[in-house]
Amino acid sequence: MKYAEMTAIELKNVSREETLVILPIAAVEQHGPHLPTGTDEMICTAVVENVEERLKEKVVLLPTLWLGASQHHLRWGATLTCRVENYETLLCEICESLLNDGFRRVMILNGHGGNIGPMQIALRRLQVDFPTCQLMAASYWSIAEDEIASVMEGNCKTVGHACEAETSLMMHLRPELVDESLLKNCDDYKLDMLEGVYLCNDMFQRTSQGATGRPDLASAQKGAELFSRIVSRVTEVFQTVQILPLPK
Amino acid sequence: MKYAEMTAIELKNVSREETLVILPIAAVEQHGPHLPTGTDEMICTAVVENVEERLKEKVVLLPTLWLGASQHHLRWGATLTCRVENYETLLCEICESLLNDGFRRVMILNGHGGNIGPMQIALRRLQVDFPTCQLMAASYWSIAEDEIASVMEGNCKTVGHACEAETSLMMHLRPELVDESLLKNCDDYKLDMLEGVYLCNDMFQRTSQGATGRPDLASAQKGAELFSRIVSRVTEVFQTVQILPLPK
Amino acid sequence: MKYAEMTAIELKNVSREETLVILPIAAVEQHGPHLPTGTDEMICTAVVENVEERLKEKVVLLPTLWLGASQHHLRWGATLTCRVENYETLLCEICESLLNDGFRRVMILNGHGGNIGPMQIALRRLQVDFPTCQLMAASYWSIAEDEIASVMEGNCKTVGHACEAETSLMMHLRPELVDESLLKNCDDYKLDMLEGVYLCNDMFQRTSQGATGRPDLASAQKGAELFSRIVSRVTEVFQTVQILPLPK
Amino acid sequence: MKYAEMTAIELKNVSREETLVILPIAAVEQHGPHLPTGTDEMICTAVVENVEERLKEKVVLLPTLWLGASQHHLRWGATLTCRVENYETLLCEICESLLNDGFRRVMILNGHGGNIGPMQIALRRLQVDFPTCQLMAASYWSIAEDEIASVMEGNCKTVGHACEAETSLMMHLRPELVDESLLKNCDDYKLDMLEGVYLCNDMFQRTSQGATGRPDLASAQKGAELFSRIVSRVTEVFQTVQILPLPK
Amino acid sequence: MKYAEMTAIELKNVSREETLVILPIAAVEQHGPHLPTGTDEMICTAVVENVEERLKEKVVLLPTLWLGASQHHLRWGATLTCRVENYETLLCEICESLLNDGFRRVMILNGHGGNIGPMQIALRRLQVDFPTCQLMAASYWSIAEDEIASVMEGNCKTVGHACEAETSLMMHLRPELVDESLLKNCDDYKLDMLEGVYLCNDMFQRTSQGATGRPDLASAQKGAELFSRIVSRVTEVFQTVQILPLPK
Amino acid sequence: MKYAEMTAIELKNVSREETLVILPIAAVEQHGPHLPTGTDEMICTAVVENVEERLKEKVVLLPTLWLGASQHHLRWGATLTCRVENYETLLCEICESLLNDGFRRVMILNGHGGNIGPMQIALRRLQVDFPTCQLMAASYWSIAEDEIASVMEGNCKTVGHACEAETSLMMHLRPELVDESLLKNCDDYKLDMLEGVYLCNDMFQRTSQGATGRPDLASAQKGAELFSRIVSRVTEVFQTVQILPLPK
Repeated sequence: MKYAEMTAIELKNVSREETLVILPIAAVEQHGPHLPTGTDEMICTAVVENVEERLKEKVVLLPTLWLGASQHHLRWGATLTCRVENYETLLCEICESLLNDGFRRVMILNGHGGNIGPMQIALRRLQVDFPTCQLMAASYWSIAEDEIASVMEGNCKTVGHACEAETSLMMHLRPELVDESLLKNCDDYKLDMLEGVYLCNDMFQRTSQGATGRPDLASAQKGAELFSRIVSRVTEVFQTVQILPLPK
Repeated sequence: MKYAEMTAIELKNVSREETLVILPIAAVEQHGPHLPTGTDEMICTAVVENVEERLKEKVVLLPTLWLGASQHHLRWGATLTCRVENYETLLCEICESLLNDGFRRVMILNGHGGNIGPMQIALRRLQVDFPTCQLMAASYWSIAEDEIASVMEGNCKTVGHACEAETSLMMHLRPELVDESLLKNCDDYKLDMLEGVYLCNDMFQRTSQGATGRPDLASAQKGAELFSRIVSRVTEVFQTVQILPLPK
Repeated sequence: MKYAEMTAIELKNVSREETLVILPIAAVEQHGPHLPTGTDEMICTAVVENVEERLKEKVVLLPTLWLGASQHHLRWGATLTCRVENYETLLCEICESLLNDGFRRVMILNGHGGNIGPMQIALRRLQVDFPTCQLMAASYWSIAEDEIASVMEGNCKTVGHACEAETSLMMHLRPELVDESLLKNCDDYKLDMLEGVYLCNDMFQRTSQGATGRPDLASAQKGAELFSRIVSRVTEVFQTVQILPLPK
Repeated sequence: MKYAEMTAIELKNVSREETLVILPIAAVEQHGPHLPTGTDEMICTAVVENVEERLKEKVVLLPTLWLGASQHHLRWGATLTCRVENYETLLCEICESLLNDGFRRVMILNGHGGNIGPMQIALRRLQVDFPTCQLMAASYWSIAEDEIASVMEGNCKTVGHACEAETSLMMHLRPELVDESLLKNCDDYKLDMLEGVYLCNDMFQRTSQGATGRPDLASAQKGAELFSRIVSRVTEVFQTVQILPLPK
Repeated sequence: MKYAEMTAIELKNVSREETLVILPIAAVEQHGPHLPTGTDEMICTAVVENVEERLKEKVVLLPTLWLGASQHHLRWGATLTCRVENYETLLCEICESLLNDGFRRVMILNGHGGNIGPMQIALRRLQVDFPTCQLMAASYWSIAEDEIASVMEGNCKTVGHACEAETSLMMHLRPELVDESLLKNCDDYKLDMLEGVYLCNDMFQRTSQGATGRPDLASAQKGAELFSRIVSRVTEVFQTVQILPLPK
Repeated sequence: MKYAEMTAIELKNVSREETLVILPIAAVEQHGPHLPTGTDEMICTAVVENVEERLKEKVVLLPTLWLGASQHHLRWGATLTCRVENYETLLCEICESLLNDGFRRVMILNGHGGNIGPMQIALRRLQVDFPTCQLMAASYWSIAEDEIASVMEGNCKTVGHACEAETSLMMHLRPELVDESLLKNCDDYKLDMLEGVYLCNDMFQRTSQGATGRPDLASAQKGAELFSRIVSRVTEVFQTVQILPLPK
């Protein structure tokens, strides 16, 4: 079910205890020289809409919040963002609308690395007031970690930024928006963890081109494969969490 | 041009002085018994995407912020919202991303009545720091006031909430989402202005069904007519404001 | 009744259901070359005190909050202000004091254009927590629109800033504070609405002298006429809203 | 000079280095059974207007901010207030308007005990950004401590709340607003300091009648004497601080 | 009892009505040329730990919050601080943890002058929500005023900043951290009260060396004497307030 | 070097470019039936003070901020905390004091799981304003992950809450504070990640006794071993990051 396509009457008839309400969140920010700024939003929305189709009666899908916490991309330009603390507040507010309307299972499905911290903290801020609701958050790549790794060729086996995975996914989903002439090896980026220490550098400092990994290894076929595995796995996991006992 | 479909390189090449950047904002909230909660988002996006097509090289269109300031609908349920003051902040933050990136002409195009106050105040908050930028905001119905009035049959000649106009527009744009069996005369709603006084009542107090005006007079044909006139007029006006001299 | 002149015991005996509590708000800000900065405060207070005299047992009048949301005048200097968002909070707090004390009918009577947005939003912020109270706001000129228009000679038939109306009112109320040698035609100001679009410019950009309309057409006699009509009309309208059924 | 009575041109000609700008602050709150809620505002305004008359060319007097930090009176009812932290912000904003306009000497003159903490903290918040301005705050009774003590008959020799001093001052300034039939000995109130410890109790806990000291010893004559001594002393002290070297 | 050394079970068994919970607060900030930045923290902790030893079963002592409101020292460098308004919030939060856990008697024991305002305001902010709890705050020198005065030799008979008293106390408590070669007469500092007026200057403006009073008169022996008298007096006073009737 | 033990003069002489400034943060919160609430603070402080001793001239150690983000323990009682968003602000403020004083390398060393999110977000909030400083954060267990794992016997090989590791460390550091009679197998706790999904449950929901892992396998000897390995590893890693090139 899609929240925005339902009338108030239809929404009123949805089970508050059993339904999993999904809030997809992403970002619109620079994605290296070859990908459109809306990459995260497009991938996340495509994934979650496919998942919704397979779980129709069990989930209610909200429209994707395209805005992300992207301050660490600002020095590259072409980035829309929100202060991190205000992004937490924004997520809290949207979830509160649902929780005050009685929904007991809320899942934030994320498609942008920079949102992980704020989305988890938003849930912690909410949990104090809604302890008997199941508040959840995941990035599609944390759910489909193994599936993604099995397809990737470069050294980095997970989803980075404008990387082999994202580029492949976009070549599959929106090939006309990918500038294939600019696909390069971007494997020189610096991780934000070093010897167990979090180094808080922005993407201008961590990458030479605003992208990571191996976009040059990307292909539409790989994108199709990734997409199909991600959708399957997210579907499976949503089925699992949708029947978790509610917390007390 | 669509912001989310452009790469950072493409965006860097856009003229900061001349381009009109458009941020469409809407709402996802109860829309009476017959319209989907996403009505405002769907209409606003359809209008603005059609306008963008006609003004391609002159505007950069952001994706629609579907979240609106909708606290006055909360008692009807089926409403996603944000505190009014936080909504102002959210609009400020998105616009700041653009203004700090050098854009000088920003237009918020609105599709939800409850956003008018916060969007104007957001611009006032920004204007102090960006006095030499042209900060603008409009609802599609304030721009196309006469065009809309000329099509409407009910007493109310402007766009209300889940009214003759919105229902017609949705019957034109997304007929499958309109529950035509529930179209009724909703002309019993109470205005928020009485003898020059603003009466701050919520939609639960002002309407008997969460809708206003004459949805029963709506038709797909009327919707097509409205849509075409709105798009033409908004296009015209955007052409006008896009060449206004920048403020000093 | 005047709140500040009553003891706690007297205030305790006032009917919470029936009494209309009035909070007058204004501004102290530059008013062109010819009017004192306190113009809005002086006019608003004079109006509301005269209204109170005629409705003695039905209203409780608070002292005038002279501070307004006047950031758009800052570049002219001689302006006291508050950030717009903090002004909303301030109005909320004062009204909350009243609402928590049991009063059910609160009217903000405004004398400064820049306060219209924030005062309406303040009421929206409050309405969520006090849905069964009648929260109201008006500018004296929105109530007495026709009465004012009938007296004005210039093209602009409503109250602007340091304009024909305000200058006349001050020549009537505090003639010694008006510098008549500097009364000029200020009809070159730019409106903030153009073709249905809100252009967020400040008063430094919209006026050449910090004033609008036709101060040169002002006269004490016109001021007396305006004042008398405004007071009568506001009195009438307050009588009407004071007996409105309370919302549920 | 009175800020609100001056035009922008007149204010522009005032010396930023030498002029002392005075912001009077007070409260509108319950004042026991016998005094009007506006007591603090009326006394403070009367004092400061008399001082201004004696120092005309040396000071610029703002209108009195009648709102105070009065949460500790709320349980008595008949009290208008603002959260303490927001009151600090409000004072900061008004002073910032002045400091950004170039004024270098700002004095908050206070007439309500509950404002002492917030007004000092407001100045501390401002001092970080305006270190070369002389930011000052005083209650009229801290300046005229000895003068007041010399007139008082009760044990308490300073200004309390609705006490011998305030009642006398009101009997002098606005006798028609004092309910003399209710003047009682209120000397049972509990101080907020005990053995060097601040006990944070509200006025409902500290007083049995919402008043302190010996209103029963009050007289109009004593009020006249107090008023004259306070005005003289405040005038003297303002002359002193007005020529203090500015900080670096 | 020491909060941090107790298990949750032990804490659960402590009487909520009778126990005095003590939150010591201090500062880490420049302390002139001769004292370590942690001076306030070290003295305050030493005092309060000695007091706790004498009142073991009657009090629960929290660890010292070393952070203080020290913005007025920033221009001297070597200072850790928090905005004043955020310091208030921080104190509120810690106290709320205790009050929500049922404790009814909370005492903030302070060791830094700059904290007096914020700690009192923090309690005022809390008192509105916890009116039946006894919220208290004191600086060790306000409690032991006479005891301290009787030992001091310089003109200033109370505790200033890096003064005769603090230097003596540190020579007693942590002699190895005092640079005795730099002890000088610092009696040139300017008070923040002049003729009853609060002059908001920072320590860079008020002192020539970041210190006050007569560090040159300090001695370890005097420190021992001061320490012993302070501890005795604070112990006595805590015994008194621990049995005060709780407010209603 | 220890910040709190140094004078302002000594601190002024420390190299801003090369010195690593360390802010240890922890928590005071319920730690199951057997450990004191100050466990995190005691362990973290012991670790970091030992590290400081080995790196004396290269680091400046601040005192430990004992307060943590512990709202998820509140339902167990015996917990001091701060709202998560305010905890972020608090960390920002302390770090800003250092960064504005010129220090270029700041490391938050954490000893409480609940602080990981907020500390990383605090650095992200700061990085926008201090891009050329190296802002770092780590938990002692993320640095010494392998060393800790090699000592642990239970299934969980990392530091949980009141677990085998923390209990052993406390039996080594402060044996008198451990209630050994209550050491139990607490391996029934629920992780906050399930199939790649973050489940936001509090500790009341995730543990049956407020503790995790195998406290029953703890021993002082294991604690000594853990402590020594942790200190060595943290020392090594701090040496590494202390010479990282500063970001641009």
